[in-house]
Amino acid sequence: MNNSTIAAISTAPGIGGIAVVRVSGTNAIEICNSLFRPINQAVQLISQKANTVTFGQIIDDNKEVIDDVLVTIFRAPHSFTGEDVVEISCHGSIFIQQRLLQLLIDNGCKLAAPGEFTQRAFLNGKMDLAQAEAVADLIASSSAASHRMAMNQMRGDFSTELSSLRAQLIDFVSLVELELDFSEEDVEFADRSKLKSLAENIEEHISKLADSFRIGNALKNGIPVALVGETNVGKSTLLNLLLKEDKAIVSDIHGTTRDTIEDIVSVRGISFRFIDTAGIRKTTDTIESIGIEKTFKKIEQASIVLWILDCTKLSEHMEWLTEKIEKKAAGKKVIMIFNKIDKIDEEEKDVLLQLFSQFACDRLFISAKKKMNIKELEDALINASQIPEIHTGDIVVSNMRHYESLQKALIAIQRVIANLNNNLSGEFLSQDIRECMLYLGEITGQISNDEILGNIFGKFCIGK
Amino acid sequence: MNNSTIAAISTAPGIGGIAVVRVSGTNAIEICNSLFRPINQAVQLISQKANTVTFGQIIDDNKEVIDDVLVTIFRAPHSFTGEDVVEISCHGSIFIQQRLLQLLIDNGCKLAAPGEFTQRAFLNGKMDLAQAEAVADLIASSSAASHRMAMNQMRGDFSTELSSLRAQLIDFVSLVELELDFSEEDVEFADRSKLKSLAENIEEHISKLADSFRIGNALKNGIPVALVGETNVGKSTLLNLLLKEDKAIVSDIHGTTRDTIEDIVSVRGISFRFIDTAGIRKTTDTIESIGIEKTFKKIEQASIVLWILDCTKLSEHMEWLTEKIEKKAAGKKVIMIFNKIDKIDEEEKDVLLQLFSQFACDRLFISAKKKMNIKELEDALINASQIPEIHTGDIVVSNMRHYESLQKALIAIQRVIANLNNNLSGEFLSQDIRECMLYLGEITGQISNDEILGNIFGKFCIGK
Repeated sequence: MNNSTIAAISTAPGIGGIAVVRVSGTNAIEICNSLFRPINQAVQLISQKANTVTFGQIIDDNKEVIDDVLVTIFRAPHSFTGEDVVEISCHGSIFIQQRLLQLLIDNGCKLAAPGEFTQRAFLNGKMDLAQAEAVADLIASSSAASHRMAMNQMRGDFSTELSSLRAQLIDFVSLVELELDFSEEDVEFADRSKLKSLAENIEEHISKLADSFRIGNALKNGIPVALVGETNVGKSTLLNLLLKEDKAIVSDIHGTTRDTIEDIVSVRGISFRFIDTAGIRKTTDTIESIGIEKTFKKIEQASIVLWILDCTKLSEHMEWLTEKIEKKAAGKKVIMIFNKIDKIDEEEKDVLLQLFSQFACDRLFISAKKKMNIKELEDALINASQIPEIHTGDIVVSNMRHYESLQKALIAIQRVIANLNNNLSGEFLSQDIRECMLYLGEITGQISNDEILGNIFGKFCIGK
Repeated sequence: MNNSTIAAISTAPGIGGIAVVRVSGTNAIEICNSLFRPINQAVQLISQKANTVTFGQIIDDNKEVIDDVLVTIFRAPHSFTGEDVVEISCHGSIFIQQRLLQLLIDNGCKLAAPGEFTQRAFLNGKMDLAQAEAVADLIASSSAASHRMAMNQMRGDFSTELSSLRAQLIDFVSLVELELDFSEEDVEFADRSKLKSLAENIEEHISKLADSFRIGNALKNGIPVALVGETNVGKSTLLNLLLKEDKAIVSDIHGTTRDTIEDIVSVRGISFRFIDTAGIRKTTDTIESIGIEKTFKKIEQASIVLWILDCTKLSEHMEWLTEKIEKKAAGKKVIMIFNKIDKIDEEEKDVLLQLFSQFACDRLFISAKKKMNIKELEDALINASQIPEIHTGDIVVSNMRHYESLQKALIAIQRVIANLNNNLSGEFLSQDIRECMLYLGEITGQISNDEILGNIFGKFCIGK
């Protein structure tokens, strides 16, 4: 299909103990062989068995040793891409990685485009398009739930479901089109009520898949949670606490940068994306300022609102604030969090509860500083997320492209049902059924074009 | 020596196409086997041949699939550490990397300390201490010269030289101590003048090694270059130009962050570390301000000073500035760079040259904006660096610890020579020769202790 041999650094950018440079294509083994001097000189890389590792050195054109490396050989079609693949495991210096890549390019490799290895795996029939996209989701997954979702999709559960739907649609359209062939004879091969129940069954399945996107999207991108409250109620202490709980392993082991994940918190495997809002300030004259309006705007982007109050002092604007939040958070899940619970007694607690009894929401007493009732807060978040637990094998659509195709397929199949109800002729039915098939086929890549592929694989990281 | 089995993520931290988790120790294969389900169920990881790759899945305690992985097995002593080693190549999501590492730890692995794999390689006799340190240098190397230096050291050229010196010292001390054994008989086994020439030969070698540290250190850490000049003379345009030339490949291929390398520029394989200085401002009253004093202080840290001037307008403080730079940069290499050469003619050029004829330094006319004479600037930098080209096989000491040991060994051997000159008895000679041997032995780790090892390997990255 594609005769060029591609190469890229496949491990994360930067300095590491080791790095892996991957080469795929017809000349992969030959090119690597020309740069490689095995330690055991009786050995020839080019005649090494598939799935074996050879120790040796990468040598440049001036016979200078670039690095001691381990070279693994995979032979077509038993490789990730379905082509001959060589993985060179070198020391993880940036200089060595670059030098090695440059040598490969100088010796006939093409620098791989983002996702080109996976694209080749797709083009060589190693996986369908939905599975290929799952590879990118898997790499980006940052919580147990998003990881599981991507694994299920990569394994092909979703693809199997789509194949089964397509098979049903093919049966369906065959019956309808057979009728059309014999239309002059006015025979009816397909029982209309049977057709209708077939269409309804398909519609139900597609609809269920499309509906799962609400959950899939939330799991993939994190459930948006707005933290609101006046200044000094303990908002940032609470956020830091939540972040810390989750990131303990990440920071200890890994040295990952705070910046990238600091507002995504994974609570028991579900990602929550915290939307930071400016603390509402207790200045009387400027309370309706632009800054505060912005805070309220952010509530609109959230699915869950954590309203944090200081148990020990309620502001004079509480009534105004309550009204405002009630209005802005309509239809959202609000959790009212009374912070600094360690500083008040039971009696004062009752007073607070009574004070806010009109406001319909969950209530929770915590102390962010003393780490009291944090587990209960997590329970409340999980509960408010209304995300069912994802199990191995569950099919959850998390890809916007898939969702859009499902939506279009849904409209087509709904038209089929309407036309059946209106006793429209087979020609109309056939067209809509084929359209439905087309949209489902787009998802797995049975129908695709360069533009679609470019869009999909262009978002991958280089080296995958 | 150490029965625990260690595990760590060995590739660079962060998200990549793939990541490699490395496991080393007695139970490495057994522990990985317990987490691994091969795709070909006829296969058992535990009975796979050394240096082979097996495709399969990592399964957790709940039978959930964590990832599709490639597992490579190395068997003791034919591995990097000299122990059984397993490398698990997984998808490069942070979640998967962490989860896999956690599973390994839950199943009996210990989280590897920084450099622990290399430390084990050293303890198991796979390499000496100087070679182990070269591994870290190799990973950190960012220029052709520092890379070549580290490769030479890792290959053992330096270690061979030290062994040869130690062998000579052992011969030496044997002769001296044999004499001591027969001291009552007043025999002289060793010809004093022969001993002296032996000691002088050793001293010369050690001295040469120690001297190479000037070059080694400069190559490893970059040659410090201060860019000074008034504001708006084109300092930052020039720096960006130099950075860009070098980093073209880095940024295109790799997406490495600017921050880390932005002030290190590799010119023809030699690293220059640019020390940024605040532009000197042409305000009359505050010209002697603290900020400007800081700029001049930075000149003191540099080996090379690039003094940049605007051809088209010289400031009124030029005389004062010239005097100042002349004083601060005494003993340093100064290159005077007249920028914006495209805007003046030959006559004006001559006027400029005459104006600064008193100032002893190299002069160069460039245009940073039009990229004129940049090659000449690079020539001047290379020339000013006074770094000879490093060839494969050259021994250049670049490690402060090695340098310090060499210095101590040098003092000891110089004492031996002095004592020989003063006809002191063999006892004194023997003690100093043994001290010299001790210091040389420290470098390769023939003599070492936990504290030294802790210091050395603690600075490695995790996973190596």
